[in-house]
Amino acid sequence: MAAGDDLKLLGVWASAFVIRVKLALSFKGLSFENVEEDLGNKSKLLLSSNPVHKKVPVLLHNGKPICDSVVIVQYIDEAFSGTGPSLLSSDPHERAIARFWAAYIDDKLIVAWRQAFSSMTEEDKSEGTKQMFAALDTLEGALRECSKGQGYFGGESVGLVDVSLGSLLSWLKASAVHSGIKIFDPIKTPLLAAWVERFSELDGAKAALPDVDRVIEFGKMKLL
Amino acid sequence: MAAGDDLKLLGVWASAFVIRVKLALSFKGLSFENVEEDLGNKSKLLLSSNPVHKKVPVLLHNGKPICDSVVIVQYIDEAFSGTGPSLLSSDPHERAIARFWAAYIDDKLIVAWRQAFSSMTEEDKSEGTKQMFAALDTLEGALRECSKGQGYFGGESVGLVDVSLGSLLSWLKASAVHSGIKIFDPIKTPLLAAWVERFSELDGAKAALPDVDRVIEFGKMKLL
Repeated sequence: MAAGDDLKLLGVWASAFVIRVKLALSFKGLSFENVEEDLGNKSKLLLSSNPVHKKVPVLLHNGKPICDSVVIVQYIDEAFSGTGPSLLSSDPHERAIARFWAAYIDDKLIVAWRQAFSSMTEEDKSEGTKQMFAALDTLEGALRECSKGQGYFGGESVGLVDVSLGSLLSWLKASAVHSGIKIFDPIKTPLLAAWVERFSELDGAKAALPDVDRVIEFGKMKLL
Repeated sequence: MAAGDDLKLLGVWASAFVIRVKLALSFKGLSFENVEEDLGNKSKLLLSSNPVHKKVPVLLHNGKPICDSVVIVQYIDEAFSGTGPSLLSSDPHERAIARFWAAYIDDKLIVAWRQAFSSMTEEDKSEGTKQMFAALDTLEGALRECSKGQGYFGGESVGLVDVSLGSLLSWLKASAVHSGIKIFDPIKTPLLAAWVERFSELDGAKAALPDVDRVIEFGKMKLL
């Protein structure tokens, strides 16, 4: 990180998309100023930094805003390519595969998880749960292919896909405790279950992931 | 393009997402084998190349598949960085901005356009039309900022955002003819209207964009 580089993250602690950015910053070893937003009364800085969506997370690098969690993670990796480990491979095909799975997590897993745990009807919840397990099964196959037996979607160290999925862990674990549903089942998805243990023990993850009990308490107050 | 490089595109001519890949290949000056799929009877190659979504487009580069149009466009630019013009800037912040707007086009403009022209009720159509014009208005602002008066979202030449938006042009023009709604209005969004003219006249665009009349005929046979 160059002297004088200034990183400011506008977020809310419980947002998985904000956690995603914190994970990327943490794994890259970058220090930043954390600005906790009140979504009921958004700051002028947030509104002027992300006038299109008016949403967190926004990363300000020397005052320049970057929005959208997956875009921010890639930005962090590219703008600080000389700092810490790379989150994306130098190989274009491996980068394409990582971007594909990062999109899959957002478009399939998150959508199914939300349906499973916040639908109004049992039928919708049941369909969401089914789709969530189908997505996890697909990700088990992706982990088998991407990790090449080295433990992470990024190979021997964490990458964009690990950060994308890892950002959901506190919420997925909270949902599992709350519902009694074993989401990461060592029988159904053994590689993924082992990945969860391995990822959660990383210093970079511990520094960025919120405590599961805190998420459970937060989830009780607010609808998921 | 290195000797022996083999590019094969699995697609259907009318798909805007396939057109997107064709535009990228065309602007980069890359030759490829076009494989027209029958979506009612998908080829074994398509099913094995994109087992997750089973959708076009898929680009096969020396037999290795890449899926998802925006992922493919970035792959083409990175894997053939020494060939033709760059579709993404070398500056990380400009790349982040381009990825942000590419996502905006897919998440907002396409969703609104589909609602405007293929909803079942007049109320839904009207709401879709309203949101489509709001998205176009936002893109007018983006073009003003990104182009810096040089004509394209990518500055003085086309980039990822031009390709993303440009891939919709034949369909947007067909929708305008079919509905009588002026989508690119020189009064409401003058920069965008001028961009449409400029983009459509590029050799790279002419080679990749399907004829509007053909899209209109196709649209009459199939629901949008």
